Amino acid sequence: MKIAIAQLNPIIGDLLGNAQKILEAAQKATAKNTRLLLTPELSLCGYPPRDLLLNPSFVEAMGTTLQKLASDLPQNIAVLVGTVEKHLEAHNDGGKNLYNSMALLENGKVQQIFHKRLLPTYDVFDERRYFEPGLGANYFTLDGIDIGVTICEDLWNDEEFWGKRSYAVNPIADLAIIGVDLIINLSASPYSVGKSQFRERMLHHSVVRFQQPIIYTNQVGGNDDLIFDGNSFALNRKGELVCRACGFDVDLAFVDFDVEKRDLQPSSITPLPETEDAEIWQALVLGVRNYAQKCRFSKAVIGLSGGVDSALVATIATAALGKDNVLGLLMPSPYSSDHSISDAIALSQNLGIQTQTIPIGELMKSFDNALAGMFAGTEFGLAEENIQSRIRGNLLMAVANKFGYLLLSTGNKSEMAVGYCTLYGDMNGGLAVIADVPKTRVYSLCNWLNNQINLKELGKNNPKSIIPQNIITKAPSAELKPGQVDGDSLPPYDILDDILQRLIHNHQSAAQVVAAGHDVTVVNRVIQLVTRAEFKRRQAPPGLKITDRAFGTGWRMPIASNWLAHNTIPL
Amino acid sequence: MKIAIAQLNPIIGDLLGNAQKILEAAQKATAKNTRLLLTPELSLCGYPPRDLLLNPSFVEAMGTTLQKLASDLPQNIAVLVGTVEKHLEAHNDGGKNLYNSMALLENGKVQQIFHKRLLPTYDVFDERRYFEPGLGANYFTLDGIDIGVTICEDLWNDEEFWGKRSYAVNPIADLAIIGVDLIINLSASPYSVGKSQFRERMLHHSVVRFQQPIIYTNQVGGNDDLIFDGNSFALNRKGELVCRACGFDVDLAFVDFDVEKRDLQPSSITPLPETEDAEIWQALVLGVRNYAQKCRFSKAVIGLSGGVDSALVATIATAALGKDNVLGLLMPSPYSSDHSISDAIALSQNLGIQTQTIPIGELMKSFDNALAGMFAGTEFGLAEENIQSRIRGNLLMAVANKFGYLLLSTGNKSEMAVGYCTLYGDMNGGLAVIADVPKTRVYSLCNWLNNQINLKELGKNNPKSIIPQNIITKAPSAELKPGQVDGDSLPPYDILDDILQRLIHNHQSAAQVVAAGHDVTVVNRVIQLVTRAEFKRRQAPPGLKITDRAFGTGWRMPIASNWLAHNTIPL
Repeated sequence: MKIAIAQLNPIIGDLLGNAQKILEAAQKATAKNTRLLLTPELSLCGYPPRDLLLNPSFVEAMGTTLQKLASDLPQNIAVLVGTVEKHLEAHNDGGKNLYNSMALLENGKVQQIFHKRLLPTYDVFDERRYFEPGLGANYFTLDGIDIGVTICEDLWNDEEFWGKRSYAVNPIADLAIIGVDLIINLSASPYSVGKSQFRERMLHHSVVRFQQPIIYTNQVGGNDDLIFDGNSFALNRKGELVCRACGFDVDLAFVDFDVEKRDLQPSSITPLPETEDAEIWQALVLGVRNYAQKCRFSKAVIGLSGGVDSALVATIATAALGKDNVLGLLMPSPYSSDHSISDAIALSQNLGIQTQTIPIGELMKSFDNALAGMFAGTEFGLAEENIQSRIRGNLLMAVANKFGYLLLSTGNKSEMAVGYCTLYGDMNGGLAVIADVPKTRVYSLCNWLNNQINLKELGKNNPKSIIPQNIITKAPSAELKPGQVDGDSLPPYDILDDILQRLIHNHQSAAQVVAAGHDVTVVNRVIQLVTRAEFKRRQAPPGLKITDRAFGTGWRMPIASNWLAHNTIPL
Repeated sequence: MKIAIAQLNPIIGDLLGNAQKILEAAQKATAKNTRLLLTPELSLCGYPPRDLLLNPSFVEAMGTTLQKLASDLPQNIAVLVGTVEKHLEAHNDGGKNLYNSMALLENGKVQQIFHKRLLPTYDVFDERRYFEPGLGANYFTLDGIDIGVTICEDLWNDEEFWGKRSYAVNPIADLAIIGVDLIINLSASPYSVGKSQFRERMLHHSVVRFQQPIIYTNQVGGNDDLIFDGNSFALNRKGELVCRACGFDVDLAFVDFDVEKRDLQPSSITPLPETEDAEIWQALVLGVRNYAQKCRFSKAVIGLSGGVDSALVATIATAALGKDNVLGLLMPSPYSSDHSISDAIALSQNLGIQTQTIPIGELMKSFDNALAGMFAGTEFGLAEENIQSRIRGNLLMAVANKFGYLLLSTGNKSEMAVGYCTLYGDMNGGLAVIADVPKTRVYSLCNWLNNQINLKELGKNNPKSIIPQNIITKAPSAELKPGQVDGDSLPPYDILDDILQRLIHNHQSAAQVVAAGHDVTVVNRVIQLVTRAEFKRRQAPPGLKITDRAFGTGWRMPIASNWLAHNTIPL
């Protein structure tokens, strides 16, 4: 029996468009004699639909669209479509009034409905906000084959693999007791570094433990801050990888279930990226491309400072949108070094993108004049530095507004963490491309890029070093006052990033970070900076998530708080 | 038996400070022979602690602080303290690893722990993200009196009152079966208009139904976008109000439980505000005051445009921080009308606040010059309008940064809804004071203010009309181009606000709004504007919540979405 994995890239809320994508996948699959088509979790509305689910008319429209899709689908193919279903007894029994469901469509009708059992409510996930968990094991029989149905998180509770339980039940164990022939999983699992290998390792464990082959179908594409990497795959009864769809792109993959052997047959396996840098690159390119497309932008503008962050963002944007659709804006001040301009120009030439230059010296003087009375007798300081950044922010937005560009902001995660960025200045943008990329990773990505020749997304005949070497080797600086370098205010980035990793990802206390070998004064200062920058992060644009703890949807911190007083170490 | 309600205003995460507040309340209560002291939900860490709960060191510190508090408390008083407790079996059984709990402290020790059973996970609440629900009914016996313990949401599931169940269990019904003498509720229930009356009406229903007297203890104070109104109260066995603590301020209220009659005795009742405007006024003043205090600001700066929004915000800020701590900044452009300056000055004189004036004409020219090359041949439009707003935003932040002011933004909810505001311009600020106040309510509040004489927060001898009448009567305008008025771009505010109420609060579809009598073209346009402004709202400062559906913590919408295409009506 031929089964197809439709690795789709839906637009959130675009019910008709998403239904059309499912229909087209079904038509293609039918042409290859496919008996069963799998689509990702909530494939009809896209994941995550968030508070659109609170509109009754949205839920009604999903139901109508699902029925229409059922009647439009080709004959002789069964299709699993992700949708929401009403929890009709909520009124009397309590609980949320929706289920996160998969509908089995065949012969023009909805044949069966399956409800997701494990509802992630952590990090970026809010499923308990909307959904009631399904209570029973989900399966159906197709041509005599018993197929267990699981939805995303349903497979993420193997207590042997994790060393603990996160939910009371394990749906895969229930299906093993029933003794199905095959388990399918319909997912919308967001990307983070190494997630694809992790998923394969996790499901390998479950397959070996429960002796059930698994087909894992994932969503692909960028939706606001979340990137879905695709990388759908299948494991046979021995836990061997028999199929992998591509990463970071739509795909329609096929895998055969051998009815005699009760197992999946070997199929095509797309290799994973060779390095973490290659993987992150693909993720960020997809994130920018999809955010722009889904918000109906074709072009982007970026402030080019001659620094490594804006160089990386410009390169990503060029790969995502094409060199003719990216504009670099140079806005030198009297504090800008010569190389800040020459490096930015060299980068732009390497990328083949257009630039414009608007010096801001006169604008700075105008602000000095305007504020001369109020600022009389004060010293040049942070206020003046921020004015420069905000002049640039205003110019970038002016150009974006005038010509319909998407402004991409260029701050990295280390800066966002410690607040080494100007709110309403360099933080401006519709999308913060590298807001979840630590500075040390920014360097690593740039070095990786410079080792790529003929990188697919950048076209052929790239120069050997896309990012001019001087951009990588010079000391990082905001250039907001003469001779300034980041090292004046911050510890070296390798130290800073390690401290931040411990604080933010590992939830370590100050004492634990110090115990790991860091200087207590530095640790205290970093904790203070991170805490005090919360008001900036609250107003940041969505930032593409590539780690398991990003400053986005899944970061929910109070601003007015005094945990700081307890969380630094008295000296 | 004397029972005290400690209506406390904690700082989030300030464990030692909050413990000290509980200790002081216990000392005062002991001096009046109180046997039992009630404090709000999570009184040790403040509500909501949000992702601070993900730090194990935070949870450990709460445990340590609780033990220390237990040993510091006076003898002969039992104290209920809100804290988190570890769910020790989470590892084996699944589920979240914390409970939202109340600890009963007496004789130097934690005597008993009670776990919250109903965990709100909707609107601004994320409790399923952190907590596991408690499973059993909670009660204890003190001097022979059986006291049922409920935590906030535990009392919000009376299916008779609501006409439906939201959770499978009703803790108050369980306590009625057990037959306790008294039910106490420890809450952190955020303010919205009329919420206090609503709570009293709801619990009146439960008291009459289950024949149990109830003491309701609420948190007070502003925490980021959430305002807690206090208004703790008690109902006797007949459902009669026997006690009400004050609204929008800390309080220590006392109520006697008559051991013979098994009922609460009449005590002092603070009257509620007489009008919704009076209530909202108090809420917003508290919200500004607490946000400033808890973020360690003593002074605020506001851009004064001569319009009604900035006039209201300046008046609120003056009441919250004192007239000597508020600076109004006037930034007229060549498009500003004469009255925009004279009205703003008249307002400032009425309030007794200082002003500074920085004309922006020269800055506008500098931007025109800087952009002349790129903008050559284009028409004056939105880009140029936004530049003006962003020049003002830069000046406001420069003054705020230089002198340590908190910048308060002045946009109202109607503007925030339709995006009639400039990101990085007039939206700038640490707190958006009236972001949840519709324009029609802004007028209502200004008119109400002008009828107050000797308003407590503004000091004695206010002028009869605090807000100059011309500010209220003139046509609203952003004054970003000559002769501009809001009516050029938007429907009249009474129409707009009704449409927005239906879309945002009532989750109505376009068809339903039209069926209510609104013009289809207007409705389509408003839906488009609301949807397309999502990217602006995502980057807005926290806005004080006064309705049941604010654009803040509880508003979780996708940006890149295409629900719009389905949610407008084809013409």
